[in-house]
Amino acid sequence: MDFEYSDKTKSLLERLNAFMDEHVYPNERRYHQEVEADRWGHPPVLEELKAKAKAAKLWNLFLPDSSHGAGLTNTEYAPLCEVMGRVHFSSQIFNCSAPDTGNIETIERYGTEAQKARWLPAMLDGSIRSAFAMTEPDVASSDATNIQSSIVRDGDDYVINGRKWWISGVGDRHCELLIFMGKTDPGAAKHQQQSMILVPMDTPGIKVLRPMTVFGYDDAPHGHMDMLFENVRVPASNILLGEGRGFEIAQGRLGPGRIHHCMRLIGLAERCLELMCRRVKSRVAFGRPIGEQSVTLERIAESRILIDQARLLTLKAAYMMDTVGNKAARAEIGMIKVAAPNMACKVIDWAIQAHGAAGVSQDFVLANYYAHARKLRFADGPDEVHRNQIGRIELAKYVD
Amino acid sequence: MDFEYSDKTKSLLERLNAFMDEHVYPNERRYHQEVEADRWGHPPVLEELKAKAKAAKLWNLFLPDSSHGAGLTNTEYAPLCEVMGRVHFSSQIFNCSAPDTGNIETIERYGTEAQKARWLPAMLDGSIRSAFAMTEPDVASSDATNIQSSIVRDGDDYVINGRKWWISGVGDRHCELLIFMGKTDPGAAKHQQQSMILVPMDTPGIKVLRPMTVFGYDDAPHGHMDMLFENVRVPASNILLGEGRGFEIAQGRLGPGRIHHCMRLIGLAERCLELMCRRVKSRVAFGRPIGEQSVTLERIAESRILIDQARLLTLKAAYMMDTVGNKAARAEIGMIKVAAPNMACKVIDWAIQAHGAAGVSQDFVLANYYAHARKLRFADGPDEVHRNQIGRIELAKYVD
Amino acid sequence: MDFEYSDKTKSLLERLNAFMDEHVYPNERRYHQEVEADRWGHPPVLEELKAKAKAAKLWNLFLPDSSHGAGLTNTEYAPLCEVMGRVHFSSQIFNCSAPDTGNIETIERYGTEAQKARWLPAMLDGSIRSAFAMTEPDVASSDATNIQSSIVRDGDDYVINGRKWWISGVGDRHCELLIFMGKTDPGAAKHQQQSMILVPMDTPGIKVLRPMTVFGYDDAPHGHMDMLFENVRVPASNILLGEGRGFEIAQGRLGPGRIHHCMRLIGLAERCLELMCRRVKSRVAFGRPIGEQSVTLERIAESRILIDQARLLTLKAAYMMDTVGNKAARAEIGMIKVAAPNMACKVIDWAIQAHGAAGVSQDFVLANYYAHARKLRFADGPDEVHRNQIGRIELAKYVD
Amino acid sequence: MDFEYSDKTKSLLERLNAFMDEHVYPNERRYHQEVEADRWGHPPVLEELKAKAKAAKLWNLFLPDSSHGAGLTNTEYAPLCEVMGRVHFSSQIFNCSAPDTGNIETIERYGTEAQKARWLPAMLDGSIRSAFAMTEPDVASSDATNIQSSIVRDGDDYVINGRKWWISGVGDRHCELLIFMGKTDPGAAKHQQQSMILVPMDTPGIKVLRPMTVFGYDDAPHGHMDMLFENVRVPASNILLGEGRGFEIAQGRLGPGRIHHCMRLIGLAERCLELMCRRVKSRVAFGRPIGEQSVTLERIAESRILIDQARLLTLKAAYMMDTVGNKAARAEIGMIKVAAPNMACKVIDWAIQAHGAAGVSQDFVLANYYAHARKLRFADGPDEVHRNQIGRIELAKYVD
Repeated sequence: MDFEYSDKTKSLLERLNAFMDEHVYPNERRYHQEVEADRWGHPPVLEELKAKAKAAKLWNLFLPDSSHGAGLTNTEYAPLCEVMGRVHFSSQIFNCSAPDTGNIETIERYGTEAQKARWLPAMLDGSIRSAFAMTEPDVASSDATNIQSSIVRDGDDYVINGRKWWISGVGDRHCELLIFMGKTDPGAAKHQQQSMILVPMDTPGIKVLRPMTVFGYDDAPHGHMDMLFENVRVPASNILLGEGRGFEIAQGRLGPGRIHHCMRLIGLAERCLELMCRRVKSRVAFGRPIGEQSVTLERIAESRILIDQARLLTLKAAYMMDTVGNKAARAEIGMIKVAAPNMACKVIDWAIQAHGAAGVSQDFVLANYYAHARKLRFADGPDEVHRNQIGRIELAKYVD
Repeated sequence: MDFEYSDKTKSLLERLNAFMDEHVYPNERRYHQEVEADRWGHPPVLEELKAKAKAAKLWNLFLPDSSHGAGLTNTEYAPLCEVMGRVHFSSQIFNCSAPDTGNIETIERYGTEAQKARWLPAMLDGSIRSAFAMTEPDVASSDATNIQSSIVRDGDDYVINGRKWWISGVGDRHCELLIFMGKTDPGAAKHQQQSMILVPMDTPGIKVLRPMTVFGYDDAPHGHMDMLFENVRVPASNILLGEGRGFEIAQGRLGPGRIHHCMRLIGLAERCLELMCRRVKSRVAFGRPIGEQSVTLERIAESRILIDQARLLTLKAAYMMDTVGNKAARAEIGMIKVAAPNMACKVIDWAIQAHGAAGVSQDFVLANYYAHARKLRFADGPDEVHRNQIGRIELAKYVD
Repeated sequence: MDFEYSDKTKSLLERLNAFMDEHVYPNERRYHQEVEADRWGHPPVLEELKAKAKAAKLWNLFLPDSSHGAGLTNTEYAPLCEVMGRVHFSSQIFNCSAPDTGNIETIERYGTEAQKARWLPAMLDGSIRSAFAMTEPDVASSDATNIQSSIVRDGDDYVINGRKWWISGVGDRHCELLIFMGKTDPGAAKHQQQSMILVPMDTPGIKVLRPMTVFGYDDAPHGHMDMLFENVRVPASNILLGEGRGFEIAQGRLGPGRIHHCMRLIGLAERCLELMCRRVKSRVAFGRPIGEQSVTLERIAESRILIDQARLLTLKAAYMMDTVGNKAARAEIGMIKVAAPNMACKVIDWAIQAHGAAGVSQDFVLANYYAHARKLRFADGPDEVHRNQIGRIELAKYVD
Repeated sequence: MDFEYSDKTKSLLERLNAFMDEHVYPNERRYHQEVEADRWGHPPVLEELKAKAKAAKLWNLFLPDSSHGAGLTNTEYAPLCEVMGRVHFSSQIFNCSAPDTGNIETIERYGTEAQKARWLPAMLDGSIRSAFAMTEPDVASSDATNIQSSIVRDGDDYVINGRKWWISGVGDRHCELLIFMGKTDPGAAKHQQQSMILVPMDTPGIKVLRPMTVFGYDDAPHGHMDMLFENVRVPASNILLGEGRGFEIAQGRLGPGRIHHCMRLIGLAERCLELMCRRVKSRVAFGRPIGEQSVTLERIAESRILIDQARLLTLKAAYMMDTVGNKAARAEIGMIKVAAPNMACKVIDWAIQAHGAAGVSQDFVLANYYAHARKLRFADGPDEVHRNQIGRIELAKYVD
């Protein structure tokens, strides 16, 4: 057992924290002002900071086994991901934001050389962004086999039809690529019906209907879009890996994506705990700082316990992915997918309560972060689906 | 013991439910569309429905002991209030919305004849609305003695200065009156420093800075405003009850206000439980309706238990206010102020989870209602203040 | 709505409380000492107090519509039951203890004149006690149709075979009668296989194997026995209501039994809250009474809220049984069966924590009461079965 | 980061598990039978198994940096401790039971050569046992400065007077030594008033008043004794480290003791989860195994998450003790002291519920294990004290 981060991680962590201190935290206000001024525009501050991060070689840190990135294992990358989670827009500054990270890995792992050549340079460069179009409004999409959109071969093309929603990042003006999931063969075996295909955002027939809101937030300029695809035609060569391989690709990208989400949630919860601590030290009610009330101390203590436990469990899951592989680690990946968002919701809720009405307002990030954490209790599969699976894996240990 | 509602209540309830079925539920969509189209305007549908409600004699139901209203006790009014709580904008249709109800009662109980003559007819008629300006950003306002704004006598006038926020209803175009709380004598005994005064919204020096958001909602067109008062001058005759009586008036209006909030929360929770039940009966995942999963049934059962318990406790508190008075009922009033919002948050959170991503979006009222219920865990005093007081009352039963 | 108890209840309540103050609380210590001295004997103090209660006409209070008892409705009896619940052995003093109350009602309602004449006088007189033998070790007995013991007709007799456990009260030296449930016709329709039959305790073939323990308590001298029935032969005339009517009788006795259990749990929780309050007022840690810590005040406040809510829900269920009948009240009966034991467990757990190690020891009743409340989360059907049923009743309100 | 156990640990773990499988689990029943047959005797099976463990070189595994033991770090020993926790009496088999482990370490670290020579050989040999006499009935003993017993110098002796309770292990017939804490100088500075002294059990004036019970369990033959010390006279040379050093010694022994307790709790929770899984796979209710109900699967999944998180946190705390020392690790030690018992209580409570009435009875270890875990929510300081301290450490990170 060794609970120390690797030297590589420690060194990157130090540099990342210094960058956050110098460039990110002081610009949070500016970011929000720029978004308010031009809700679906691209905030200039982002490009400034991206340039600085690239110069500081804090770029594409997420990429494992890659000449393009930092070559970190999941375990090594996780603590960096946590720090980025402290400020919701900061992953993008380091070109480590979802769903781009998952899309880059997908193309790198499953793409043809031509597909890689067409898309990876710009994605790795941070000059374009991308989205992942899977979830549909009419079916329980946590069961990927439910996906109904159609991808039909027509000569040298595929023609795509369907409705997708909660397609995150499509609001971004730089979003130029979609990875689209749909059915190429509704008559095939259950797990061979789906395919994934690359769809440039400027293809005719793509209609963005509206941004979905999370609690009252539209998450501009990123956005979670409700979209219609009507006879969207792309070259047949855009298919990923081949017809019927969609489910397989979907499975492959889940592990790292979940680890990243969970580590970011841990950073986000740490940030909210920090806000809570600062607040209760200064806020006086009925004659003394509320930080001296034992009920406040209890919540701070429980927050510390919950956060540390969730971090350790996430690191353990990352470690297992690195050592025994995503499949053998699926119970652990499911466990953090349940534990981290629930932990974050609890911690943030306490932080909100310590702030009173200010806590739910635009004057603090708390309510926005709560909404984000709450959404992650069903994004990528609701708690209930994961708990059922974890429970079944546990029961399977006991053969009668 | 008799758990039946009075005949008067039953008859009104039947008429109110019929009105909701015929006029309110079918117009929810229209209401939201009109607000979207003109966010801080006055939705025409409201005036249409108000006229219908007045014609149906479902008007000013909240007023106890009054020639103006229905003459209902708190216990009799509570079940009606619950029904109105099912649709967040419906109280207004029946001229029973906060903070107008509290303001009307305050003026009726504490106002001079001239004050009553000036304001009550339009308020009871529903042609104007009003707000209550107490909470301030810089102090823990749950302790009313912390309020810092100044009300200074200057000849025949009072001159008002201060910053107020979360002033609900100021966004309404019909809002013409504020009841303002501030200090007339910072040197007086702690509970005699505060006064309340009537301030017409069109008085010079009132500046609405911005709407506060609750999670991401600005609650347009109602709004919770951040406001600045700079040398706002009103006639001395606008003072309510006399200098130094502000704290006393504040205490007087709390009881009924809390009962109303709690009963509306119960209606709101019932509505969300209904949405949950309808959803789980129709939604299929992994081969069967999620309503057949025992984990879903458990949550529905717990929701039913929590709601019924909160309703009974609220009715008991109303009954005590009616029979032994607000002061003797203060433990019970505190108890529902804690129980009802926490219950509602739990029930709505389960309902959201049953809806998946749709549950936090604009397609259902759930996330908006959650934000509202969550806010009530600190509005009118945070849970912690109430629990402390309830605990002290309990301990005081045991004299050593 | 009327939350006042009836005059009849108020008067009995006053007399009952006076009796508890004068005779029961001062004798708790003596009771425990007598049990310690002769664990499976009959504590003399009980007979003394029974005589006093009979003289005070506080006797057989539970019996509704009866010339034998107080003629109270469920709603009227409930508050008395609550008071008795404050001291675990006190129901017996007033001849109101389970399972005798249920057995008396069963015989009165379903017994022949001969059966009544044989057993009721001594039972109503308190000179004998009885038990109810239903639960079996090998099957999930919450589903009564699972019961496997056999009752086979043989000439003028029935011959009984089977294993029963958790048969409460068999340890009592005065226990002379069992109501036994088993199968008379395994081939009949599912709900017609079972019968109930009267079995005198001195019938040959009855073997008491051991007392079951609840946590570490054997609940002597009452006891929950593990029993074997081997060729136990009783006259055919001992059958209740007729062959195949057992399930029907079982259903009939459930409602009142649950109301009684729940009201006693409320009294028990009130007692533990009282102990907690007294403790925290006097106990000093780190320089001040722990009752001044906000975390303690929060728990006291939550206890008060939980208890009051559970009491109101139980009274409402009793009221519905009285007014619309046990069948229409089955959701409410299920709801209190879930709510009351869970509430009691929470309140007692907090009371234990406030007492430190003393709280789990023999020096206070807390751990023993916890064990009792915990057991009631599965006795008469586990929480899960009730919640499922409540959930289904709720869903059934929405016909698609 | 490395989540693998060391090779040393893995090898010992394999041998320990093999020993448990071969010798301990198959003898659990016999142990309970022998205790039932002679409640305060010494079960012969223990000596048999101790001899086997010694022969297998699975002996004194807990001793760090020691020629006597296995020389394991806390991190290395923790996983072994977990396995022993699966059977409550098994630590003793390997001479690793509390409070002997703490007593041996105390004497080894703070004892004189003569004290070591007198006591350590028999303690390390397992031929005698020992107890630690600190807690007193009249004061909140979680604050060690509250301890009131007196240790008064009288010529070449100390004379000891006082009442102690919850002195674990005194029931054991092999218990020959007490480490006693009391005041040598009530007038000294707060943390210099206390001393510790070695007291042979056969010294005149020691009276064992009674065993304390934990939820009905007296934990025979180990026991938690209520004891009176009247003019107990021991040689002055029995003092440990010197007068006024008691508080310092008490602090020193806390860290490892808590780690051990927590790891054993994790093993205990694992065992109960195993029992739960086996039960729900085989138990059928309403037509299918309860293990197929989603509510059961959820509880199993949550148990798995809670256990794994608590284990990781405990290992992290052990790691910090090993690397930065007990003092720097005090937040982490406090955190596991809160997290592990609460986790165990939750997991066991679910396991009990899955077993129905059998779960609280003597037929399974569940209720006994629950009682043990519940007791650890205040033994060595109640949750509230630890949470307050953790909260203060967290707040101290933010200097205004």
